[in-house]
Amino acid sequence: MLNVESPTSSSLGPAATPPSHVRARTGIWFVGARGSVATTATVGLLAVQRGLAPTDGLVSELPDVAAADLAPLADLVVGGHDVATHTVAEQAAHLARSGVLPFGLPEQLAAELADVEGRIRPGIGAGVPQREAADRLIADLAAFRDEHGLDRVVVVDVSSTEPPVTPSPALDDLATLEAELDGGGSPLPLSSLYAYAAFRAGCPLAAFTPSTGPACGALDALARELGLPWAGRDGKTGETLVKSALAPLFGRRALRVNSWTAMNILGGGDGQTLSDPEAAKSKTTTKGLTVSEILGYPVEGPVRIDYVADQGDWKTAWDHISFSGFLGTRMTMQFTWQGADSALAAPLVLDLVRLLDRAHEAGQAGPLAALGFFFKEPLAGTTHALDEQWHTLVDWIGELPARRTTAGAASAPAPTAQPVQPEQPMQPTP
Amino acid sequence: MLNVESPTSSSLGPAATPPSHVRARTGIWFVGARGSVATTATVGLLAVQRGLAPTDGLVSELPDVAAADLAPLADLVVGGHDVATHTVAEQAAHLARSGVLPFGLPEQLAAELADVEGRIRPGIGAGVPQREAADRLIADLAAFRDEHGLDRVVVVDVSSTEPPVTPSPALDDLATLEAELDGGGSPLPLSSLYAYAAFRAGCPLAAFTPSTGPACGALDALARELGLPWAGRDGKTGETLVKSALAPLFGRRALRVNSWTAMNILGGGDGQTLSDPEAAKSKTTTKGLTVSEILGYPVEGPVRIDYVADQGDWKTAWDHISFSGFLGTRMTMQFTWQGADSALAAPLVLDLVRLLDRAHEAGQAGPLAALGFFFKEPLAGTTHALDEQWHTLVDWIGELPARRTTAGAASAPAPTAQPVQPEQPMQPTP
Amino acid sequence: MLNVESPTSSSLGPAATPPSHVRARTGIWFVGARGSVATTATVGLLAVQRGLAPTDGLVSELPDVAAADLAPLADLVVGGHDVATHTVAEQAAHLARSGVLPFGLPEQLAAELADVEGRIRPGIGAGVPQREAADRLIADLAAFRDEHGLDRVVVVDVSSTEPPVTPSPALDDLATLEAELDGGGSPLPLSSLYAYAAFRAGCPLAAFTPSTGPACGALDALARELGLPWAGRDGKTGETLVKSALAPLFGRRALRVNSWTAMNILGGGDGQTLSDPEAAKSKTTTKGLTVSEILGYPVEGPVRIDYVADQGDWKTAWDHISFSGFLGTRMTMQFTWQGADSALAAPLVLDLVRLLDRAHEAGQAGPLAALGFFFKEPLAGTTHALDEQWHTLVDWIGELPARRTTAGAASAPAPTAQPVQPEQPMQPTP
Amino acid sequence: MLNVESPTSSSLGPAATPPSHVRARTGIWFVGARGSVATTATVGLLAVQRGLAPTDGLVSELPDVAAADLAPLADLVVGGHDVATHTVAEQAAHLARSGVLPFGLPEQLAAELADVEGRIRPGIGAGVPQREAADRLIADLAAFRDEHGLDRVVVVDVSSTEPPVTPSPALDDLATLEAELDGGGSPLPLSSLYAYAAFRAGCPLAAFTPSTGPACGALDALARELGLPWAGRDGKTGETLVKSALAPLFGRRALRVNSWTAMNILGGGDGQTLSDPEAAKSKTTTKGLTVSEILGYPVEGPVRIDYVADQGDWKTAWDHISFSGFLGTRMTMQFTWQGADSALAAPLVLDLVRLLDRAHEAGQAGPLAALGFFFKEPLAGTTHALDEQWHTLVDWIGELPARRTTAGAASAPAPTAQPVQPEQPMQPTP
Ligand SMILES: NC(=O)c1ccc[n+]([C@@H]2O[C@H](COP(=O)([O-])OP(=O)(O)OC[C@H]3O[C@@H](n4cnc5c(N)ncnc54)[C@H](O)[C@@H]3O)[C@@H](O)[C@H]2O)c1
Ligand SMILES: NC(=O)c1ccc[n+]([C@@H]2O[C@H](COP(=O)([O-])OP(=O)(O)OC[C@H]3O[C@@H](n4cnc5c(N)ncnc54)[C@H](O)[C@@H]3O)[C@@H](O)[C@H]2O)c1
Ligand SMILES: NC(=O)c1ccc[n+]([C@@H]2O[C@H](COP(=O)([O-])OP(=O)(O)OC[C@H]3O[C@@H](n4cnc5c(N)ncnc54)[C@H](O)[C@@H]3O)[C@@H](O)[C@H]2O)c1
Ligand SMILES: NC(=O)c1ccc[n+]([C@@H]2O[C@H](COP(=O)([O-])OP(=O)(O)OC[C@H]3O[C@@H](n4cnc5c(N)ncnc54)[C@H](O)[C@@H]3O)[C@@H](O)[C@H]2O)c1
Ligand code: NA
Ligand code: NA
Repeated sequence: MLNVESPTSSSLGPAATPPSHVRARTGIWFVGARGSVATTATVGLLAVQRGLAPTDGLVSELPDVAAADLAPLADLVVGGHDVATHTVAEQAAHLARSGVLPFGLPEQLAAELADVEGRIRPGIGAGVPQREAADRLIADLAAFRDEHGLDRVVVVDVSSTEPPVTPSPALDDLATLEAELDGGGSPLPLSSLYAYAAFRAGCPLAAFTPSTGPACGALDALARELGLPWAGRDGKTGETLVKSALAPLFGRRALRVNSWTAMNILGGGDGQTLSDPEAAKSKTTTKGLTVSEILGYPVEGPVRIDYVADQGDWKTAWDHISFSGFLGTRMTMQFTWQGADSALAAPLVLDLVRLLDRAHEAGQAGPLAALGFFFKEPLAGTTHALDEQWHTLVDWIGELPARRTTAGAASAPAPTAQPVQPEQPMQPTP
Repeated sequence: MLNVESPTSSSLGPAATPPSHVRARTGIWFVGARGSVATTATVGLLAVQRGLAPTDGLVSELPDVAAADLAPLADLVVGGHDVATHTVAEQAAHLARSGVLPFGLPEQLAAELADVEGRIRPGIGAGVPQREAADRLIADLAAFRDEHGLDRVVVVDVSSTEPPVTPSPALDDLATLEAELDGGGSPLPLSSLYAYAAFRAGCPLAAFTPSTGPACGALDALARELGLPWAGRDGKTGETLVKSALAPLFGRRALRVNSWTAMNILGGGDGQTLSDPEAAKSKTTTKGLTVSEILGYPVEGPVRIDYVADQGDWKTAWDHISFSGFLGTRMTMQFTWQGADSALAAPLVLDLVRLLDRAHEAGQAGPLAALGFFFKEPLAGTTHALDEQWHTLVDWIGELPARRTTAGAASAPAPTAQPVQPEQPMQPTP
Repeated sequence: MLNVESPTSSSLGPAATPPSHVRARTGIWFVGARGSVATTATVGLLAVQRGLAPTDGLVSELPDVAAADLAPLADLVVGGHDVATHTVAEQAAHLARSGVLPFGLPEQLAAELADVEGRIRPGIGAGVPQREAADRLIADLAAFRDEHGLDRVVVVDVSSTEPPVTPSPALDDLATLEAELDGGGSPLPLSSLYAYAAFRAGCPLAAFTPSTGPACGALDALARELGLPWAGRDGKTGETLVKSALAPLFGRRALRVNSWTAMNILGGGDGQTLSDPEAAKSKTTTKGLTVSEILGYPVEGPVRIDYVADQGDWKTAWDHISFSGFLGTRMTMQFTWQGADSALAAPLVLDLVRLLDRAHEAGQAGPLAALGFFFKEPLAGTTHALDEQWHTLVDWIGELPARRTTAGAASAPAPTAQPVQPEQPMQPTP
Repeated sequence: MLNVESPTSSSLGPAATPPSHVRARTGIWFVGARGSVATTATVGLLAVQRGLAPTDGLVSELPDVAAADLAPLADLVVGGHDVATHTVAEQAAHLARSGVLPFGLPEQLAAELADVEGRIRPGIGAGVPQREAADRLIADLAAFRDEHGLDRVVVVDVSSTEPPVTPSPALDDLATLEAELDGGGSPLPLSSLYAYAAFRAGCPLAAFTPSTGPACGALDALARELGLPWAGRDGKTGETLVKSALAPLFGRRALRVNSWTAMNILGGGDGQTLSDPEAAKSKTTTKGLTVSEILGYPVEGPVRIDYVADQGDWKTAWDHISFSGFLGTRMTMQFTWQGADSALAAPLVLDLVRLLDRAHEAGQAGPLAALGFFFKEPLAGTTHALDEQWHTLVDWIGELPARRTTAGAASAPAPTAQPVQPEQPMQPTP
């Protein structure tokens, strides 16, 4: 059901932008740029820029987070990689038909979407020598930055979920990895190849999928070496989000959770990918951890994701929680969550871009524990409890140094020179 | 369904108690001592004292709260007022039959329950001159303290919910109140009469019901004057508890809640009382505030409590939440909560007794904002958000001064002398 | 969520129509023609006639029902009464925005909707002398029939629900009623005034609301006297529909239902009307009967309807069923139903028109027990169990005599002459 | 939760029994006699016989079914096979602790349960030569009949679910089967071996599990040859039961079901068996057919059964139904079912025994289509729709010939001589 009538008109109107000659502009580079999440984020960003939509759903517009002095939405430019043959506009039209985007909106943004389409480059598939592939990806990123005069490009991986990956020395160790790449090998899962290229191109990275991506020893080392922040893993948008808000209730009230069963049905592109049980394994693994981690003891219960084509771009989750209290009395709670997955994910992607952009500007590198709030599997050791993640995020924002350049007004040269950065990031390796 | 088999035997065994000659013992005085909540708390306390049950459900046994150096469970003694004609043991047997207490447990505790019965005094009904009534209540409290050598008695109001009360000068102003009492009047709702007597007897008070109780100008003044801490109002045990854990999720993710409908069905004594729409009004009012307060804007949606005799001592709540996110996409969440209300409330009552006992020992007076965690309507101005209430509680515990006497080992005279206390609390007024 | 892509194109295409000079055409006259139900039925009918929509949801298109040789959808013409100031097209646009009608469909039918608008006459409000009012209504019906060359007009009451009515002699007895009308009185609730006019105009009637309408002694007598069939009361479209399919399960499996709680939230025009507790009383009464009637013993449980504006034209029902089986073991079932009420009601309205048209053609008069399948409160004594209602309907269809004229091909004069009809129906009484 | 207080005492009291010298008594032989279903049925039967429980849950006590003139409950005697090492009384105590049986009831029936234990014989496992095994099973059945002077023994298979079986000539063809058995082979799954023995012993059979049992060409032929009725397959007690009551609603209202997702969690013995995906396959197959069969078109949607130990002997099912109506408007219904599986199954088992006993008495043979009402996979071609199954059952009862002997009063010799019976059933084959 659309809420065509509800947006408070007062919150609309074209986003105010400072004069363009002093602007520090930020690029968003989507891996999977024609997928549902990227398309929804793109349409939403364009709609906000054009004053056609309010900023509901954007965490980065809440006063506590906006306090970080983030890049204005008006200054973000979208490009990306994809292997799909349809256009972003076609995907947007599809999403409007299934109610994820307001009816008619894609048509209103046809010109802008065509511009975005023109900034999408062919992605990389399996089975190609990965040194050359990486070089091409890096060159694409550099070209995007140069052509649009961007100060910084943040890469966001929103491509299809990969099956879990077998450990290997090349994933663990950067030198081994470089040697294998030089030797004509293809040692990386694609998500990690994109992460490698992002880092080599000097770009912060958000790993929005459950795939390996930057979450391995070799790439973590690379990011630190190059002074690049990154965040991951697997956007927390539905059932896991609810779990992370509810599980602390049981813990703090000393109610013992005996079992927590989680059943999910979803359609769409992501659902189709996850109907392959191997790919789903990545997802159910990141989803299953939450409750036990929060409560501090193992909690029984299956976590299922099933593909139901009819759900389209919607996801329905049913959770059944059995718990016991005083004198062992047994009770239950159940919930159903009916969400438009991409509509939940899209604003988070924009939030992550703005926060990573700011972290980079502030000189931070490596996985950012402070962004655990956004992820099912918060890397870098933070808790899964949503409220603690929130407080960590707000505290981190409070401790950020003031911007060296006013957001959206970079008169000085962009902060490309990171002290710890030993290599030239934007040069394709020979 | 009972969990007769599950209690980990390792957590059982008679509660360890220090030698009795050095013990500071604390009395619990229930107004409504034969009701479901009081009976469940009594049976549970006795079972834990006898080593027949674990301490699941007791917040005060969580490490973060136990850090407050609370009175040992072994040192608590139960008495109370009630107007019912059945015994505590009969109520316990009834609760066991409906699965709220483990089958067979009341029988195992027959002797202890008979002792408790012997410490229950007749309550006060409507239509009696309230000065004499108060004197009698105060005398009952003094006698309980003296006979059992208690250092301190904490009164807990778990009697039937009253209808909302019309404002009056006697409720607002202590001098007016005293004058009306002296003049042979009956200016107070019964819950406030019990609160008056508790304070005049020098007892801290937990207002577990939605009735007026101490929450009026006159009694608040009295508590401050006598240096007595109190906490309220209306124990947060079910649907509102869930609301207070879930609503922050929507706020922090910038998801707009369009409506939040709450439907409750319950049987039992409390259900019967609330089937009177007037009495229910107190309850739905304290329940309805939560979401709007947490989110900071008015949220539409009915809050209903319906009596369904067949539910017995169980409560089922269904909540329907409609929210919208990015680009106005509309989504829903629903939950059902099936709880044994008394089993959820009983441990909280024991927690409150221990925390109020400690607060009194530490010299605190007036409504305790730090105990908002336990209440649907947290008086004294704290937030409704469960996580913030939790952090407030833990912070308060961290700041408590060390006990003047070791908990459970009061060698020194009990701290009866409150500096600001202008009257003799335990003397029935003439 | 719209299903714009799903209609199988093979089932579409303009409805085939025989040459018009031999056609027996049927008029639909909506009381409440600009309301949600009437508008949805109108748009749907026009869409099917234009080949823009399939016939999903129409019971009368199922083979077992179509066997009744019903008037083709292509031959139905819509008119009606209403007191609203908005147009049908505006209401249709509103319903499309809330997802009840496919986006864009009202615009495609703009010309046809304007035609319908031209056939809507002002309704009657309270406080007018009802003899004159009735004469005007009858004249409107006659004019509609004459101008469009209709063989028969079926009146459908889909106007706002009225509060329950106090019994009176005029409602009971036709002679008293006529005398009071002649005396300048206003003895009838408006729904009954419309029913009176319908019958006096020789029209069969479907009472789709819970209002009194034809369900009183005086009007029942009138219908029988004039040989007119009618059906009612209160369309069964949501929670009651589910109840009537589920309750027999418990009965036939000898499972005892201990309580059945039904909570409904809805917005829209009907929701607004029902937010008046008096008007809601009519509705909760017709809804509450179902389960007890089917099971044969009284079943405890509240039936609530609450107005939640945010629900728009949608209705969500939550039912909680507590039952016990062998050895008294207690179990529960719960369901939620999220329906677009008007989308559920609209096809039934068309079904009822076609079936009443056919019943009239077949010479049947009085309340039709065989149409109980469509109603929450099946008048004329049939069961509430959906499956038995279905079998009754199918059996009735099987026993209908063959049409005197081919449906949609009335070469002979229309069957206006009912044997038992003592008065001239289409003449306004003087 | 137990309903210890609710059984109307008026419905209790020892079941009336005619003088024993004229009684035709019927034996129940459980394969899996110490499992949850058999134990619940046994305890329940004994409790009813002793006047300790009402007959709630027994379909055979509903007037429409009791009209079949069934064997009195007082006349049923229980024996069986099992391979478990615990006793029936131990299993009963376990079920009482998890709330499936009333607390204390097994203890009250200790003597009777010991008697039943004395009538349980060791079952047969895999890997034994099946001719000898069958002979022993047949001898056990004959001994049971002779020792207790039973007119008839009905075998009920309630043993653990087997994995699906590969087709083989011995399953298809009786002569091949006999030859393989004679040759020292083990061609049958155990459920079919028990069915073979039951038929050879002249016993009607209820196949309450999803295992192969009698549902193969060879055994179907044997049953017909011996004039023995049987019924199956897989008792319909929970989610499938609800499906079979609800799916017709959608069909008859012309609402198109787009997907129907079914998620089940259960613990207990059966849950443990089904946690083996191979064994679960039998179950999900019989469960998945229902909706598509009733609606007449394929309906998408996973059917899952997951093992959650914490559920104990309880089962929770969540179903999500997405459907569309008029103009393609999409709507949803969801339900949760929380049942004590054995409490639902046990009375059906007794119903089946009484109905098969009567069918045998009436000379019926082969799979009984009329008993499809009780099964998830109704063999012999009846519909899955619950209401049609009910009407088929009632019609079948109406057409039964009168009993040759009064039920419970068999003065004449038992009807052992079946006309078509070519072999001596109770003689172990040599
Ligand atoms: N709420 C959410 O939607 C959510 C939450 C958490 C994580 N995620 C993850 O985000 C990812 C995207 O989800 P989606 O719903 O947009 O899926 P989608 O299937 O709609 O889009 C994935 C896109 O990735 C593209 N792609 C596949 N392989 C590629 C390659 N080698 N190079 C470049 N592009 C490639 C595809 O062509 C497609 O356009 C998934 O991994 C999903 O698990 C989504
Ligand atoms: N989860 C919970 O159970 C919960 C949560 C929040 C608040 N509460 C409140 O706690 C209170 C008790 O709930 P309950 O379920 O135990 O109810 P209950 O009806 O079982 O018990 C109330 C008791 O109060 C006694 N009483 C009534 N009037 C009295 C008087 N004038 N003096 C002394 N005693 C009197 C009654 O006799 C009865 O024994 C209610 O107000 C309820 O709203 C309960
Ligand atoms: N599923 C369903 O939608 C459903 C099911 C059963 C019964 N009903 C009943 O159908 C009726 C219509 O429902 P709706 O949702 O279309 O309501 P609605 O409020 O949208 O429409 C009612 C219409 O009746 C008109 N009206 C009011 N008083 C009138 C008068 N005196 N004369 C002529 N017109 C008058 C109003 O102007 C309005 O256009 C209600 O009584 C409702 O209870 C609806
Ligand atoms: N509602 C229900 O409970 C229900 C519904 C439909 C079907 N069923 C079926 O009924 C069967 C029994 O269910 P349950 O919950 O009682 O299971 P259970 O595990 O409690 O009992 C099965 C019994 O079978 C015995 N058994 C196993 N192999 C045997 C063998 N070779 N010979 C003799 N006995 C053997 C086991 O020892 C056990 O006592 C299962 O197949 C189940 O799928 C149950
Ligand atoms: Na749309
Ligand atoms: Na029990």
